[in-house]
Amino acid sequence: MEGRTHYAAAVTEELIGQTVTVAGWVHRRRDHGGLIFIDLRDRTGLVQIVAEPVHAENFAELDRVRAEFVVAITGMVRARPTGMENPELASGRIEIEPLRVTILSEAKTPPFMPAEAENVDEMLRLKYRYIDLRRPSLLGNFMLRDKVLMAVRSFFHAHGFLDVETPSLARSTPEGARDFLVPSRLAPGEFYALPQSPQIFKQLLMVAGFDRYYQIAKVFRDEDLRADRQPEFTQIDVEMSFMSQSEILDMMEAMLRQVFYESLGVEVAPFERMTWQQAMEGYGSDKPDLRAGEPLMDLTSAVRAHIAWPVLQAAPFAGGAVMRHYQPTRKQLDGWVEFAKGQGASGLIWIVKSGEGLRTSAGKWLDEQALQHLAAAARLGTDDTLMIVAGEKFPSLAVLGQMRLEFARQEKRIEDGWRFLWVTEFPLFEWSEEEQRLVSAHHPFTMPHPEDIDLIATDPLRVRSQAYDVVLNGTELASGSLRIYQPELQAKIFAALGLDPEETEEKFGFLIHAFQYGAPPHGGIAFGLDRLVMLMAGARSLREVIAFPKTAKGVDPLMNAPSPVSTSQLDEVGIQIKK
Amino acid sequence: MEGRTHYAAAVTEELIGQTVTVAGWVHRRRDHGGLIFIDLRDRTGLVQIVAEPVHAENFAELDRVRAEFVVAITGMVRARPTGMENPELASGRIEIEPLRVTILSEAKTPPFMPAEAENVDEMLRLKYRYIDLRRPSLLGNFMLRDKVLMAVRSFFHAHGFLDVETPSLARSTPEGARDFLVPSRLAPGEFYALPQSPQIFKQLLMVAGFDRYYQIAKVFRDEDLRADRQPEFTQIDVEMSFMSQSEILDMMEAMLRQVFYESLGVEVAPFERMTWQQAMEGYGSDKPDLRAGEPLMDLTSAVRAHIAWPVLQAAPFAGGAVMRHYQPTRKQLDGWVEFAKGQGASGLIWIVKSGEGLRTSAGKWLDEQALQHLAAAARLGTDDTLMIVAGEKFPSLAVLGQMRLEFARQEKRIEDGWRFLWVTEFPLFEWSEEEQRLVSAHHPFTMPHPEDIDLIATDPLRVRSQAYDVVLNGTELASGSLRIYQPELQAKIFAALGLDPEETEEKFGFLIHAFQYGAPPHGGIAFGLDRLVMLMAGARSLREVIAFPKTAKGVDPLMNAPSPVSTSQLDEVGIQIKK
Repeated sequence: MEGRTHYAAAVTEELIGQTVTVAGWVHRRRDHGGLIFIDLRDRTGLVQIVAEPVHAENFAELDRVRAEFVVAITGMVRARPTGMENPELASGRIEIEPLRVTILSEAKTPPFMPAEAENVDEMLRLKYRYIDLRRPSLLGNFMLRDKVLMAVRSFFHAHGFLDVETPSLARSTPEGARDFLVPSRLAPGEFYALPQSPQIFKQLLMVAGFDRYYQIAKVFRDEDLRADRQPEFTQIDVEMSFMSQSEILDMMEAMLRQVFYESLGVEVAPFERMTWQQAMEGYGSDKPDLRAGEPLMDLTSAVRAHIAWPVLQAAPFAGGAVMRHYQPTRKQLDGWVEFAKGQGASGLIWIVKSGEGLRTSAGKWLDEQALQHLAAAARLGTDDTLMIVAGEKFPSLAVLGQMRLEFARQEKRIEDGWRFLWVTEFPLFEWSEEEQRLVSAHHPFTMPHPEDIDLIATDPLRVRSQAYDVVLNGTELASGSLRIYQPELQAKIFAALGLDPEETEEKFGFLIHAFQYGAPPHGGIAFGLDRLVMLMAGARSLREVIAFPKTAKGVDPLMNAPSPVSTSQLDEVGIQIKK
Repeated sequence: MEGRTHYAAAVTEELIGQTVTVAGWVHRRRDHGGLIFIDLRDRTGLVQIVAEPVHAENFAELDRVRAEFVVAITGMVRARPTGMENPELASGRIEIEPLRVTILSEAKTPPFMPAEAENVDEMLRLKYRYIDLRRPSLLGNFMLRDKVLMAVRSFFHAHGFLDVETPSLARSTPEGARDFLVPSRLAPGEFYALPQSPQIFKQLLMVAGFDRYYQIAKVFRDEDLRADRQPEFTQIDVEMSFMSQSEILDMMEAMLRQVFYESLGVEVAPFERMTWQQAMEGYGSDKPDLRAGEPLMDLTSAVRAHIAWPVLQAAPFAGGAVMRHYQPTRKQLDGWVEFAKGQGASGLIWIVKSGEGLRTSAGKWLDEQALQHLAAAARLGTDDTLMIVAGEKFPSLAVLGQMRLEFARQEKRIEDGWRFLWVTEFPLFEWSEEEQRLVSAHHPFTMPHPEDIDLIATDPLRVRSQAYDVVLNGTELASGSLRIYQPELQAKIFAALGLDPEETEEKFGFLIHAFQYGAPPHGGIAFGLDRLVMLMAGARSLREVIAFPKTAKGVDPLMNAPSPVSTSQLDEVGIQIKK
């Protein structure tokens, strides 16, 4: 069709007395007082059509329309009668008197109405995704996503980052998560793999001298899908040369602040920065939610000094979480003990301060004076509660960190706002119980902290890296690092990981070779775009910000993918279904 | 590293007397008159470093560097001595006297120097792509590609198109080219397919009311790779609702004109428009190169009237191509006869006009008066040549079209410039000799021309469609159409294609179902981005505008993809290599 003159939300009072053409879906139809009222919906919102029987032909057409019919209406804009205005709509002060009505498409009664989709089973919504997506709230997520994408690109473009597409048909790499495989027809028995990240390619672009690269890239991981994972997802992938870690952090922070400003109109405060060590000690987590109240406390010396219980005396660490202005009931206190045990703690000591003094669960081991000392150490106010967990340091902190979050959630103490945080100096290595060897915490190309190079051979688990995460409101948004660009240092890391030269050649040969021909210092980061948009939209699931998502079983109920294919298709690529 | 203050090309006369830090690759090193000259290369170009032995430490470091070492140099900017300026460089009037030299990475002697890569075997260049990409000309292609991408996105963003990502793990569809398959682990024996286009998804987005969609999407086709095809390529994919064909054409034309202006600074003229019929009759091609001279001529009636040869009298069609200001030798004329036969013509008649009169290859059948008539019909000037081919209409035109192009190429008559063209009203159906049935020329959702609906049942090969192509300088850049959105019309098309309801349900059910719930009129187009950038860059191959391309055998020689994978990887997805 042609001739649409206005979107629904653009039909406002300035157009009164003019003829316009609008087109869209019948959102609602009411018959009232001999008139037909139609709320016509398009991407921008609703506009009201009012038909009178005096225009017999138009009236007859509109009498025929049902919900979700697609119509084009040419009509006269007029003011709504006084008292009938709808201040919630951009077009709420006007209505359109139809002069010409065209029914473009009829519609069967849909399995659910877009306006009611919130309460519909998700499988049904995904099967009829094209109706689900008519929900204004869901559509709004995609309008936001579009804005975010454009703001990201504008920033990188303005700062000299080249948008370079890297291959989707890549090579299967043995590190990391499971690859999706793509059988090759021209080389039967061989396979491409869909990329888990453009990591290798972007590093090669740095070796090529591209200097600054970004890409909004689709990546793939064949993992067991937890409630909110998708097998394919989108990342903002960035790499740059000749920049220090702090220059990289500043640049990426500027990017995110611009994106929030352009997409949401929000001026985000400069990001806080802390080391991994500080995050773990302060929040029991490498992704602290700074909205959820004050940090945890190290009460080890206070506990040792004041609690005589031998188990605590022997504990390497005791930490505390203060719940301010909180006077729990006995039942709630028992609940916290259970919660702590559920998180793996062997026990929990609570101290409640009220107008009547201090109560504790450890009365057997604590006299009044000891209680006073501990309360002072934790700076307890008159209606505060202190939770103490003792044991191994990081596990104890992890339990307390969970209690801190759970308390903020239960008591609705999570502050509004966007609390961004850089976490830096992640450990370079982790110990894999499963493999009984060191593994890379980030990936094997992560640059160690310059002060810790000597520890690689002697005490690898203490080696800090030059890796960094962006955390937003307790969610990890991005992960990055400076990369190793010197072959000798890389060899040291491989040795620490217990990879022999043959294995490293097989696994990482192409990158190591490239580094022998002049590699610049470089580093980068990758942001989870879906998660970023989800947080910005206030959505509860990634599926609300992905147009055609998969279920937790990896299924698209709309297209029925995956599906069986013909034997001839399998023959062509030289594979068969395993019996 | 940190502290780079300037890119190479930014070190210009204004900085004379100042200290700068540059970083990059040693492009060239010369020792001359006891001095060391280094051309330092970064993404922006070259800057010259001149070291004197008096600064012993720096001199010693620079004495050590070799081609493609990576260095950072802090130094004083000074004017080059008079007569030593290099006007080809942005930094050609200055040089840098090093104060601090840091060798960041050494480099083995590369298998080829970036500056010499043009003459190196392509397999070697692809294997060392990170060196190949250091060529300024190749890097320039990716800087252009980045500009084009941004200009495209800016246009669509400004015009209300939403950037929506559609799935890469989709469903195998039986129409079109061969799918790349991805075995599913969670549903063993079932497969995803990589999308050949987001066609279905973008149409579903229109049914959802997204109104305007675009995406720069990676798509996949497992075809036998001709010299210049890639298994994965990028398309600018667009769909919009409630717009007429001419509104769509205007919008897309505006987009391309803006892209050319923003990326190349070129103001492209408004596109010419012709129907498929006009293109075939005028150029013997559905993608005419308008730079290659005037259109072909229909000489059927002139030939019938003046050439008595019975074969020509019986021929349904005779067409002519005029080669202006061309006086071929006898040998050249024989060459054209061979060329025409090589293109499938049964013969060729030539008429050459010169100061001495008219010569022809058909003297036996043409007297002077007949010759004069034919020359007049073709408006031959005194040094023009006319080529006549007779036979079936479109095959004859195709031969003449090839001759027109070949003449323009040989004689270097192809004009400079960007000649854009819309070709419209493509046939809706084609006859497949292989399948002995009608097939869709574009795809089965293409809207027929409104005047030809009745012909679908009676004379389907005469049905015109509302499909359109963008042609640039003889290359098809984009292909699109209005789509059918009425279930009844769609059923008629499926019937004409000989698809039974069960088959259509199986193949296209999800889309047909969606159309029953209120589908808007819609249409769209898809542009081949790689090809567009290739033409804009003046590159000779798609591989010059794709960062990590595959060879004609689908191989990435750098990563060694595809590759064998482990049996356990195959076990997990329930497949095995076919014996």
